[in-house]
Formats: sequence, C-alpha cells, structure tokens
Amino acid sequence: MEVYLIRHGIAAERNEYTNDEKRPLTDRGKEKTLQVARRLQEIGLHFEIVLTSPLLRASQTAEIFQQANLSPKIETFPALAPGGNIQEWIDWYLQGRYNERENSIALIGHQPDLGNWAELLVTGKIQGKIVLKKAGAIGIRLSKLKNPIGTSQLFLLTSPKWLL
Amino acid sequence: MEVYLIRHGIAAERNEYTNDEKRPLTDRGKEKTLQVARRLQEIGLHFEIVLTSPLLRASQTAEIFQQANLSPKIETFPALAPGGNIQEWIDWYLQGRYNERENSIALIGHQPDLGNWAELLVTGKIQGKIVLKKAGAIGIRLSKLKNPIGTSQLFLLTSPKWLL
Repeated sequence: MEVYLIRHGIAAERNEYTNDEKRPLTDRGKEKTLQVARRLQEIGLHFEIVLTSPLLRASQTAEIFQQANLSPKIETFPALAPGGNIQEWIDWYLQGRYNERENSIALIGHQPDLGNWAELLVTGKIQGKIVLKKAGAIGIRLSKLKNPIGTSQLFLLTSPKWLL
Repeated sequence: MEVYLIRHGIAAERNEYTNDEKRPLTDRGKEKTLQVARRLQEIGLHFEIVLTSPLLRASQTAEIFQQANLSPKIETFPALAPGGNIQEWIDWYLQGRYNERENSIALIGHQPDLGNWAELLVTGKIQGKIVLKKAGAIGIRLSKLKNPIGTSQLFLLTSPKWLL
C-alpha cells in the first residue's frame, strides 16, 4: 500500500489570524494546490480516501484534492493536527479496511509532523531531516509486515517546484 | 551546498553484455534521460561539476546532462562505481573546492549505492529504504558542519514519472 503525505498549500500569515486553526489558504495557495492536485491526477494517482488535519488550511487542501477527482472521500483525522500522535493513524491502518496492497491513501497535514511521520515509517526514528514544502508530497510504500514503523520504503519527496 | 544523486538511465539487459561495465543506455534510456536533463535545466538547476561512475551507462548519462547544459564539467569518480566507498567522496568534498553554500553538484551512479549514500548523509545509517528509479534524482542539502554524514537534509526524491 502507498501512503502519500501531503502538506497543505500556502496559507495566510499567522499575524493575520489570532486562531491558527482558522488560517485559510491564500488565493495563490489555492491556485498552486489545485495545479499540484491536477498534476497528480494526470500522473494517475487515485486515493481511496483522504484523511485530513482538522485545521482549515489542511481541510481546504483536501477539498481541492477532491475537486481534482483525486479521491471520492475525505475524512477529518484529528491526529493529523500539529503535534498529533502517529500511533492513532497506525491503529486506524491496522484495523485493515484500507491496508490492501493495491490501495493508495493520502494524509493531509503539517510540518514538521508529516516529515517526522515519514521518518518514523521509513527509519523508525525522528531526526527532522525531511524538507517538505507547502503543497509538497512524500510517497511511502508500506511493507507487508504488520507494523509499518521502521519497515516502509520512501519512493517520493517532491514539491510544486519539481511537479509543475 | 546541494548534492544531486542521479541514477543512470535505462540500460541494455545484463545478459546482452558479458562485461557489465560496458552496458550502454538503450535508445529509450537515452531519450528519457535527455528529457529528464532538459526538465532539470528548465527548473533552473546548474551543476558546477558532474562526477560520474566510470561505468558506461553512467558516463553516458553524464554526457547527456552536459548536452542539456546542466554542467560545464564532467569528471570520472571511481568510487561512484557499484560498491564504492562514500568516504572517498567525503574526502573529495572536504578538500573544499566545491563545498561553498551556493554550489550544486551532481553525482551519477548506481543503485543501491546512491540510496545508501543518501541514507548515510541524512541519517548516518544505511537501511536500504530509498527507492531510486532509473534517471531519478535525490536532492540533499549538506549542513554547514564539516562532516556531512548524518547531518544533511533530504529535500527531493523523484523519478521520470513525476518529473516529465
């Protein structure tokens, strides 16, 4: 199974919104995210489900992905908020509904969390070494072993600069 | 400083050439490698130098990069051959001629060596978890610290599928 970790697009500045959870994508952020989503769709990606952080800039990114026909289904996943615990996603994954080999799913969230999750899945250890730009993507292939922590492969790390 | 680790393009089958060092790129391999090189050039990459494995499929890839105006200079670097020791490249790097922050260089070689070198630079440990396709690229930002092993950042892992 392939998991794509997607960082939300360019959002309004922090000083413009007292509530960080409500910071929206900017117009440019929406446009660039849509371009990325269309490009991924052209390449042939299709996600059985998109799980998104509850924060506005992430859920807007998820909606843009749905708009580009990348996935029929979006669900809010609280552990994708900043500081969330990957174990909640592992538990979700181990329930088995989406862990067939043919499936792809997308997780939309934030940095440094997504880079840290990727490091945990691939190396078993957070080192903070993965640079993930806004509207960028990490592609991870989960092993057939039960627990994906430290057993997965990294096959993609890209961003709008390299995709568009 | 940014280092791009580039895997050679699609080469002739092993059973067609008794001497693995002489296996050339196929016509399709040359064409796809040239497309990748042109795309990298359009994105704005420029390498101060390209170091290449002495094997034919790698040196042909390096020549295609030069043909696409990605670099004025190619040098054969024996440690980029399969099984080569990264320490030889670290020694070369620490001589300081190309380790300015503004520089980009490319290393052209083979799998699993390039993935292993990337893991050493980023995590300090070989785990064999990086999937690098033919004519694919890994982008690594070296830290300002003297020794790049285990101190570098990963910002790119891509392949023709995602670039073209």
